[in-house]
Amino acid sequence: MLSRMFRTHGAIGLGLLVPLLSWGVALARSQPEPAADSDGQRIEDLVVACHICANEGVMDSFGHLSVRSAKNPERFFMSRALAPAQVTVADIMEFDMAGNPVDPQGRRANGERFIHSEIYKARPDVQAVIHSHSPVVMPFGIAGVSLKPVTAQAGFLPLDTPLFEIREAWGTAEERGMLVRDSTLAKALAQKLGKAPVVLMRGHGHCVVADSIRRATIRAVYVEMNARVLQSALQLSKNVTYLDEKEIAYNATENFDLERPWDNLKRRLPEASKR
Amino acid sequence: MLSRMFRTHGAIGLGLLVPLLSWGVALARSQPEPAADSDGQRIEDLVVACHICANEGVMDSFGHLSVRSAKNPERFFMSRALAPAQVTVADIMEFDMAGNPVDPQGRRANGERFIHSEIYKARPDVQAVIHSHSPVVMPFGIAGVSLKPVTAQAGFLPLDTPLFEIREAWGTAEERGMLVRDSTLAKALAQKLGKAPVVLMRGHGHCVVADSIRRATIRAVYVEMNARVLQSALQLSKNVTYLDEKEIAYNATENFDLERPWDNLKRRLPEASKR
Amino acid sequence: MLSRMFRTHGAIGLGLLVPLLSWGVALARSQPEPAADSDGQRIEDLVVACHICANEGVMDSFGHLSVRSAKNPERFFMSRALAPAQVTVADIMEFDMAGNPVDPQGRRANGERFIHSEIYKARPDVQAVIHSHSPVVMPFGIAGVSLKPVTAQAGFLPLDTPLFEIREAWGTAEERGMLVRDSTLAKALAQKLGKAPVVLMRGHGHCVVADSIRRATIRAVYVEMNARVLQSALQLSKNVTYLDEKEIAYNATENFDLERPWDNLKRRLPEASKR
Amino acid sequence: MLSRMFRTHGAIGLGLLVPLLSWGVALARSQPEPAADSDGQRIEDLVVACHICANEGVMDSFGHLSVRSAKNPERFFMSRALAPAQVTVADIMEFDMAGNPVDPQGRRANGERFIHSEIYKARPDVQAVIHSHSPVVMPFGIAGVSLKPVTAQAGFLPLDTPLFEIREAWGTAEERGMLVRDSTLAKALAQKLGKAPVVLMRGHGHCVVADSIRRATIRAVYVEMNARVLQSALQLSKNVTYLDEKEIAYNATENFDLERPWDNLKRRLPEASKR
Repeated sequence: MLSRMFRTHGAIGLGLLVPLLSWGVALARSQPEPAADSDGQRIEDLVVACHICANEGVMDSFGHLSVRSAKNPERFFMSRALAPAQVTVADIMEFDMAGNPVDPQGRRANGERFIHSEIYKARPDVQAVIHSHSPVVMPFGIAGVSLKPVTAQAGFLPLDTPLFEIREAWGTAEERGMLVRDSTLAKALAQKLGKAPVVLMRGHGHCVVADSIRRATIRAVYVEMNARVLQSALQLSKNVTYLDEKEIAYNATENFDLERPWDNLKRRLPEASKR
Repeated sequence: MLSRMFRTHGAIGLGLLVPLLSWGVALARSQPEPAADSDGQRIEDLVVACHICANEGVMDSFGHLSVRSAKNPERFFMSRALAPAQVTVADIMEFDMAGNPVDPQGRRANGERFIHSEIYKARPDVQAVIHSHSPVVMPFGIAGVSLKPVTAQAGFLPLDTPLFEIREAWGTAEERGMLVRDSTLAKALAQKLGKAPVVLMRGHGHCVVADSIRRATIRAVYVEMNARVLQSALQLSKNVTYLDEKEIAYNATENFDLERPWDNLKRRLPEASKR
Repeated sequence: MLSRMFRTHGAIGLGLLVPLLSWGVALARSQPEPAADSDGQRIEDLVVACHICANEGVMDSFGHLSVRSAKNPERFFMSRALAPAQVTVADIMEFDMAGNPVDPQGRRANGERFIHSEIYKARPDVQAVIHSHSPVVMPFGIAGVSLKPVTAQAGFLPLDTPLFEIREAWGTAEERGMLVRDSTLAKALAQKLGKAPVVLMRGHGHCVVADSIRRATIRAVYVEMNARVLQSALQLSKNVTYLDEKEIAYNATENFDLERPWDNLKRRLPEASKR
Repeated sequence: MLSRMFRTHGAIGLGLLVPLLSWGVALARSQPEPAADSDGQRIEDLVVACHICANEGVMDSFGHLSVRSAKNPERFFMSRALAPAQVTVADIMEFDMAGNPVDPQGRRANGERFIHSEIYKARPDVQAVIHSHSPVVMPFGIAGVSLKPVTAQAGFLPLDTPLFEIREAWGTAEERGMLVRDSTLAKALAQKLGKAPVVLMRGHGHCVVADSIRRATIRAVYVEMNARVLQSALQLSKNVTYLDEKEIAYNATENFDLERPWDNLKRRLPEASKR
């Protein structure tokens, strides 16, 4: 059903697409909602998450978000190579655990899709992965300064956030670059992530994972906020008070209300993204 | 009358709410204004204050604002658990001094509502409380650097702004977190606030209080401004000139024109918030 | 003619004002433009300058701009006490060199209007005065760090920008505050300004002067930019290269194209301000 | 054909221009696209690049962008003296390698057009030049701190970005300024640029060059991002990890997808710029 929808959209021009999508929205209103955690719902959330991350400055023209399939945990959904702000349902592709698109239909996949497949393989608990080049998080990896939690809202962070140095993964290779463009590099990244919710990538960006695309989105937003606050605090004094073990343990027990920031960040989207 | 309005709005869907509110506005124009300091006026101001604080970056998806009842000083009004930018009159609930909602009608209250009830109990002069997670104020508490007044517009600040360390309130508890989720913690916070207009909360945010919701809003905006300016000044030199006792004493005697910034900040609201 | 226009506008409600102004605009299009440097043109520019300074972050809800009368150099024009973003032609009042409004018509004047009158008295070359509370300029006065020119666009700044410390003006007074609310304090400020284009006011803001309201506006915008750039440069290194005497002397000889930034900043105004 | 279009547009008022341009857009849709790398396409891209650079904060009211002619490599196109945000096709002028406008039609050329002509002469590989006064890049030249690449997206930067000190070009001249207003100064700037993609200009701004106007635009945006990230990193620690030789070499071999950010940045333009 989904792949049929993609094929149809792939065949028509962009001019036709917008009215069709509007019609889809109108239809959705008069029809039953997608099941609470169906792939349809996950893909719908993924598109909103792309727009939120772009709107909140988590994403620039690059970076990508994915969600695992609810039906088949060996599959995940991610947009074709496209700026997150521009992603629509028609741009979502399905991938297997080798990072291969199941039915590309001529659409170009992100070169760094292996980040997602390797994390899904290593972490069965993870349902969503966000890879960002956030300019407020990146300085920490570059300066070798720990991105520790200093704000209650980022209490999901561990005492220390792991940092991936791609030079270690490349070892003594004659040639080496910055992008995580194959499974070997991605496996090293997933290993560095370990059981953490976030891994920094020196000079490149970071990844955020969670048990839903909504939670990953909210986490990505609060990783930014924590980075901003920590940057300012460290400029005021080197004697900063971080959250301690007890505070982090307690945070894990709190029933954090995801829907509140999700609804608010959705509301903040420009009109064009809400259609 | 008010609680009846809530009940009606609670029973109808969101789709109906917006036209009804517009109709309310149209009606308000042809009818007499609410009395200068009635509960109706305070609630109307509270909703505008929510939108202003969100629009000026004082509030993110969390944080909350309240106003004491003009009719019954043992009661106060605050929105249900909802991002401040999204609050409408229909979301305002009434609370007693134990922090219990008087007539919840199934609406979920903010977990940290005790911050408000305990401050109202401790400070009969306070008519409004704003609790924010502002990312420009938070670094001061985290870095243990005093948020002192450096700008004439924040001359309402004392020589030193008190800082609440929740670890002290928890003492040697086995488990402890960051949120002020019961009366005991909130009482300790109110005690730290003392007679000040602002209290910082380490790693969490801060509270601003005043004798009206309008003044609390303007204060919240200028606490942000003072924090921004002080952060920059301290990055230029450690030898900063703070306002001194005389300047603060004089500031207290000046008839600060509240309506000017209030009108301007209201004007800056996005169109959707003005309806 | 002008004062008659004010009287008429003063007598009608705000609801009537907007259509009248639109009509005024329509009329202006079919009628001859105001003379190149008439008071009508100066007032029109003053209103645009208010909106630009608000839109570019030079002004918050306070701060004020004025222009000297072309017809009578012993008079100047400034809005009533109102946020600059909200100023319309109907809000402009006329003042004499004692800082008294010529025909207030019940409108409240800015408490700090003496800043303007004293500068106009001390500096016959000055045709416009802007007083701002800019949060990016203020840190320099507070930190006691010189706001020196580091960018070609701010080459109008002298080797050192004077800093006004209001405590010196108050001397050993029992009571003293931060605001420049009378002629005595304002005279001390004008004296500190001397022949400079800008004077910083510790913990309060700064003033920019020029030979036209357009030039004062562009200067105000580039004082901000210079402050931002210098703040960042000083955070990178204490070994900063400032413009030197020759570069400043040369800058004074260049025919800086005012219309280019003026037009662009006007274009950037929100639609509502352009009517 | 192009110069005729300019003449026509030059002769008509701005009121007529907008509908004509809209009509041009409508026409363009029903007509064949301009050839892939024709001068028509380059000029169209140049106008979009002007708007993108303004919208992304690379450009203020000054600064300018140019593209070499595809037909005649001894010519280049650049707007008349106008803020980049306001540039339309009708504002584009043609210049020769001496920096002289071929057919000015009364339009005023940028005083610093020699920057462009001298770079085109010295660098046959360069097809586009962007000169900006970016306030986030400028601090590096002023502080004498190297703008080195720290982010994968700015991996096109060399190990060190050259810095132009105009005082060296002026030597012992009696008078000297900051602007590059003749061929002699511009030649010295082009020499400092050498084979690099970027040259910083102390206290003035910087230039970005590339083999297309699209690539120059994307580079300009990522030079900003790299400057922002490096500024923050250096505030966290002096022990920063820069991209190394291998990473830069590898970056040069990667087929960086230009269309993705170009499309996204185009989408971000305000509606008025898209007509």
